[in-house]
Order: sequence, then C-alpha cells, then structure tokens
Amino acid sequence: MNVQLHDSVHLANADGALARLVARMRTEIPLAAAMDLRPGTHAHGMLSLHAPLAPNINDKGCAFGGSLASLLTLSGWALVELELEARGLHCEVFVQDSTLRYVAPVWGELHAIAHLDEGEHWDDFFAVLSARGKARVQIRASIESAGEPAALLQARYVARLPRST
Amino acid sequence: MNVQLHDSVHLANADGALARLVARMRTEIPLAAAMDLRPGTHAHGMLSLHAPLAPNINDKGCAFGGSLASLLTLSGWALVELELEARGLHCEVFVQDSTLRYVAPVWGELHAIAHLDEGEHWDDFFAVLSARGKARVQIRASIESAGEPAALLQARYVARLPRST
Repeated sequence: MNVQLHDSVHLANADGALARLVARMRTEIPLAAAMDLRPGTHAHGMLSLHAPLAPNINDKGCAFGGSLASLLTLSGWALVELELEARGLHCEVFVQDSTLRYVAPVWGELHAIAHLDEGEHWDDFFAVLSARGKARVQIRASIESAGEPAALLQARYVARLPRST
Repeated sequence: MNVQLHDSVHLANADGALARLVARMRTEIPLAAAMDLRPGTHAHGMLSLHAPLAPNINDKGCAFGGSLASLLTLSGWALVELELEARGLHCEVFVQDSTLRYVAPVWGELHAIAHLDEGEHWDDFFAVLSARGKARVQIRASIESAGEPAALLQARYVARLPRST
C-alpha cells in the first residue's frame, strides 16, 4: 500500500515535470508547437512524447521524415533533461550525433519512446558529469506503427554544467 | 558564347523545377511551410535549400536540431526527385536511413547543400532502377555556419517506379 502510494506520487511528479518541459519546448521551439508536440509519460527510465498526424503529414499522406526525426530526437533530449532535473542539476543538453532508420511508414498518431541504450548507465553519466563538468550518454528511441517498429533512433547527447557551478 | 547561353538556360530550368518542387512541398508538408522552406539552386549535381532562423530556433537561440535534420533530409530528397524528373521519371522517393553529426550550433539562416556521396553514380542508380523498378542512392548534405561545417548528413534514399509502368 505504501509502495503503491509512493509510486503514484513519483509518477505524478515525473509526468508533471514532463508536462512543464513540453510546455516550455512549445513556447521556445516554434517547430515543436507546429508539430503539436504533446507529453506522454516519464517512468521506469522510459520517456514518451506524442504528436498528431495532421500537422506532421508528408506528400504521401503518412508521417513526414523530418517530424519522425524531430520527435525521436526531442524524446531523447527530454529524457536527459528530466534525469538531470530529478537530481537538481541544470545543464545545457544538446544532441551530438544520431543514426536513424526509417523502417515503415507511420499512418497514424506519432508516439516516440526513449530510453538508455544498452550498456549505458545513468550512474556513470552523472559520475563523469560531476568529475569533468561534461558527459555524454547514448539514447535509443523508437516510433511504432501498428505494433511494429517504424522508426529507430540511436543518438548521443552531451550535457554540460554551467561554468559558474 | 553559345555555351554560356546554354548553361544559363539549363540553370534557369533547373531552378524553376526546384522552385515548383518547394512550392509543392510547402503545400503538402505542413512542417515544410512551418519551417518557411525556400528553394536555393540545382546545378552541377548540387542542390540547395534554405530556411530563415526565426521559425527554426530552439530554446538556446540557435537552430533547432529537428530543423537541421529536416532541412538536410529534404535537400537530399529534393535532389533525388529532380534527378528523376530531369529524366522524365516519376517515382516514389523515400529516405531509408541517415546518420547526422551536429558539429556546431547554427546562429543564422539555414543553408543546406546536397550532393551524391563519394563512390555513387547516377548512371548506376538509373540502371538499377530501370532493371529492377527500385534503386538506392547515398547522398551527403551539409549545413555550414560562418564558413565551417555545422551539421553533416549521410542518408540513403530509395526510389520506386510505379508498378503500372
């Protein structure tokens, strides 16, 4: 009972933080607003973001590749941002490189889920960040369509602590 | 004199085709309109696309990674489309995979230039397309900032002839 209560509170806080982050992204990144970016959930190391199809459509009537790339890249970025925020850290976070495979067209709403790549550990990331003021982390993100993978991203993000800290 | 005249006519036609393609992209892809996508030139195997910074800004005041990814991916896509169109071919063209390196922030207007990757030849691409009805081609595209590379894309595109052809 206590555990369930604690879990609920934790999840509610996590989703609240994601909702605030997405609201900030929509205000500060015009393309995030144009995509109609929406928060999903952030729990158990997974973060999800959504966007409706209509503003993200291409000339073929399915999701535009640039929208898939943007949603995937933003989901990984939001994951790193919120993991930092959960530890009271405020860094500049930016994507360094990414590899994207477009496996199948997406004909409905876009749902991206991001998580740490295999072999990566937040503890290592925060240890390096604390020691050097800068650290890299590799994230995987995917968008499914009809239960099958449709777009797969592997991306490396860099976090840098402010110099004054 | 004749050569210069011929070149000018060729370039004017190529740029007209690019302007028509970008107009179609802005109509059919809402995010291309939101980015304020603009045609550059298409000549000597190079195709360029532009976008102003304001609609493509991020929370840090420089170009949003999703806009860089979209502009680079669209420049490669447009290059394949126009090389097909120049040969009277109408295919479905889509991006299959891409690798992107974000080298430096872009603080001004976004200019992307796409061209064939090293070791790739249009003749091979059209020979395979003609033989199999489907062919792949690898494109490189880049965005510079203050004369230095800021974002580098390597992407593979697939073109497929309509089945009825």
